[in-house]
Amino acid sequence: GSVLVLNSGSSSLKYQLVNPVGGEAIASGIVERIGESSSPVKHTFAGNTTQREEQVADHAAALELALGLFGELGPDLAHAGVHAVGHRVVHGGELFSDPVLVDDDVLAKIRDLSPLAPLHNPANATGIEVARRLMGDVPHVAVFDTAFFQSLPAHAHTYALDREVARAHGVRRYGFHGTSHQYVSGKAARVLGRRVQDLNTIVLHLGNGASASAIEGGTPVETSMGLTPLEGLVMGTRTGDIDPAVVFHLVRNAGMSVDDVDDLFNKRSGIKGLSGENDFRELHAMIARGDEDAQLALDVYIHRLKKYVGSYAAVLGRVDVIAFTAGVGENDDVVRALVCEGMTGLGIAIDPERNAGRVSEPRIVSPAWAQTLVMVVPTMEELAIARQCIEVVDGLDPTA
Amino acid sequence: GSVLVLNSGSSSLKYQLVNPVGGEAIASGIVERIGESSSPVKHTFAGNTTQREEQVADHAAALELALGLFGELGPDLAHAGVHAVGHRVVHGGELFSDPVLVDDDVLAKIRDLSPLAPLHNPANATGIEVARRLMGDVPHVAVFDTAFFQSLPAHAHTYALDREVARAHGVRRYGFHGTSHQYVSGKAARVLGRRVQDLNTIVLHLGNGASASAIEGGTPVETSMGLTPLEGLVMGTRTGDIDPAVVFHLVRNAGMSVDDVDDLFNKRSGIKGLSGENDFRELHAMIARGDEDAQLALDVYIHRLKKYVGSYAAVLGRVDVIAFTAGVGENDDVVRALVCEGMTGLGIAIDPERNAGRVSEPRIVSPAWAQTLVMVVPTMEELAIARQCIEVVDGLDPTA
Ligand SMILES: Nc1ncnc2c1ncn2[C@@H]1O[C@H](COP(=O)(O)OP(=O)(O)O)[C@@H](O)[C@H]1O
Ligand SMILES: Nc1ncnc2c1ncn2[C@@H]1O[C@H](COP(=O)(O)OP(=O)(O)O)[C@@H](O)[C@H]1O
Repeated sequence: GSVLVLNSGSSSLKYQLVNPVGGEAIASGIVERIGESSSPVKHTFAGNTTQREEQVADHAAALELALGLFGELGPDLAHAGVHAVGHRVVHGGELFSDPVLVDDDVLAKIRDLSPLAPLHNPANATGIEVARRLMGDVPHVAVFDTAFFQSLPAHAHTYALDREVARAHGVRRYGFHGTSHQYVSGKAARVLGRRVQDLNTIVLHLGNGASASAIEGGTPVETSMGLTPLEGLVMGTRTGDIDPAVVFHLVRNAGMSVDDVDDLFNKRSGIKGLSGENDFRELHAMIARGDEDAQLALDVYIHRLKKYVGSYAAVLGRVDVIAFTAGVGENDDVVRALVCEGMTGLGIAIDPERNAGRVSEPRIVSPAWAQTLVMVVPTMEELAIARQCIEVVDGLDPTA
Repeated sequence: GSVLVLNSGSSSLKYQLVNPVGGEAIASGIVERIGESSSPVKHTFAGNTTQREEQVADHAAALELALGLFGELGPDLAHAGVHAVGHRVVHGGELFSDPVLVDDDVLAKIRDLSPLAPLHNPANATGIEVARRLMGDVPHVAVFDTAFFQSLPAHAHTYALDREVARAHGVRRYGFHGTSHQYVSGKAARVLGRRVQDLNTIVLHLGNGASASAIEGGTPVETSMGLTPLEGLVMGTRTGDIDPAVVFHLVRNAGMSVDDVDDLFNKRSGIKGLSGENDFRELHAMIARGDEDAQLALDVYIHRLKKYVGSYAAVLGRVDVIAFTAGVGENDDVVRALVCEGMTGLGIAIDPERNAGRVSEPRIVSPAWAQTLVMVVPTMEELAIARQCIEVVDGLDPTA
């Protein structure tokens, strides 16, 4: 059977029909700008991509549309044998450290966690609600972005904040992109023919959102995102780490509200805030044209990454693998080379030939003599979610 | 001649009369709780400490009182030959990268920088104003906590924030405790008989406030405090690094104002927020009594320090010296040992015998075989300020 993986954003619905055993995406698609006057829709199956504009009132309409596209453009979902629907949910708080079968209680809890992820959890919950209504005959499973990091040790997940305030308001490091960090660290071990228990790994998930993790023998011991996905690395449009007093300063001196600063830090900062663009292909083109702001943006991005690598080397004591993944990590050999530059003191280096170009299969990119294996391991979050669904539904491990 | 060094806080005045050549503090004192109904006053001279309670209306009264104590308890300031008055100023913004002779224009600029340091700069300016009035016949010099870090490279002092907002409101990493980081890194080199230009040093200034710096050949290349002294390490009462979205979360869900969160992060967090106490002697006593919150506070504190050491090792590429300083760094051998534990992979280790106890003279505490020299170097901020005053006043380098 196959698994339909759904990712419901505030104004978009992404879907992918996955074969959890073979690992391939059978079909995939996206409905964007839900609720606006015109929504771009894209559906890919058997190498054919169909694009069109539709009017899509809400998430229910978006999912109905997607199910219709399966009927119209293939594959026939009845034939594909949808075994389960897997929902990506951003925030599981302290309640969910594993994927769970969705029932009314789980759905209510996902809604209750909305204060921790006000943009994401309500949309995720709506997506689940709609999907259960339209596909009531298959089990639905929620897979949480935070779940993998629920095992962080207390010294890593605790902020140096008043303990009563932290407890009362759930303020701690949760971490995100957990499915990706777990998948990539496991995949790196399998590719190397090693047991994940024997490896210390740093995963650098560098997409539009970006996060780093330190994983000791399969268990995460640090990660860069915190209470929310704002903390940590420089991202496409997010600041990552910044003096929290910048918030106080801007509210007092720039006539901004807290909501304004939230918007500024999350949507108008990062690479885009420094350079005007947030796609790394464009950033490199600007640098080639001599744009100094673009150069500074890249320098700040790389500097932050180096600091995290060093920091996690200290936490792990010994680093066996550094795995680059996601849009930038897989495709941008310049970023990979710059992060590892000048790090031979830490046993880290890049081989320019091995590193060259975009990477679509797991690959080692460090020289033979380097102590730490630098790798590129393409992430497959939908596949990882699909497999976790099967585990929950069957009580079996499909990768075993 | 001698130099009178003044540190004017919002409700306190600290003073020290320093011999900038010999390096000793001739006399020192503090007036606390200025403006309250009763102010504790302390004056130390020639091994005698006098303590009493006085009524002190404002900073002018505090300085008059201090000058009176010199007359009453010694030394006689006329005899001591006060050559200059040195003022510690917290924020120099982008205007001051060196100590300067105070005139009306400098004083106005220090006031203008108040939005960047609303608690400190107004008090510093008041202290200068009063001192110039009462001691009009000697030159006054302002020495800025931020000055040393004005030479941070752009990739280290730039936040990944919208460039227009950053420019308009002076939002960047400034760094603080600069006088201490500069003094300690220079002193470490002198003690080792090396040129500061040849050494890469990490300074860990661990007092009630705490900050780390990476110094490459005498030039700072990173530091942990940012726009304000809130960012970075876990401190006595400050959070240090925390997801800035925690501010948004508490304002929205905890009924707190931005001022409440500022107060929470700066005064009710850190070691105190986690354990109830902010003095490390008390913290260790609590841990010995089995207090789990105190243990967690120490674990969080040490974990953050390890991350900074690793991070700065990556930035520097090679670390020759790690120098511990200030109240905790000089006196707490347990903290020093824990920070360096499990770091042999980075060439960092502690020798338990060399490390044992409190340290009052610069000392190496790493084993002979370790690549990186771990040192304890007591900071002498007043002496460093006094020497910088003399440099400014005489146009000479008193250490040459
Ligand atoms: N060929 C490429 N070279 C450099 N960067 C690329 C390339 N292709 C994609 N990217 C980067 O990857 C980013 C998207 O990464 P992705 O992992 O898909 O992000 P997310 O899932 O967080 O939205 C783009 O914004 C772009 O910066
Ligand atoms: N013997 C000691 N052992 C451990 N910690 C000590 C000892 N003496 C002082 N400290 C710590 O040093 C701190 C003060 O450091 P200091 O550098 O004077 O701070 P600041 O100048 O930032 O106010 C105290 O709060 C205490 O935690």
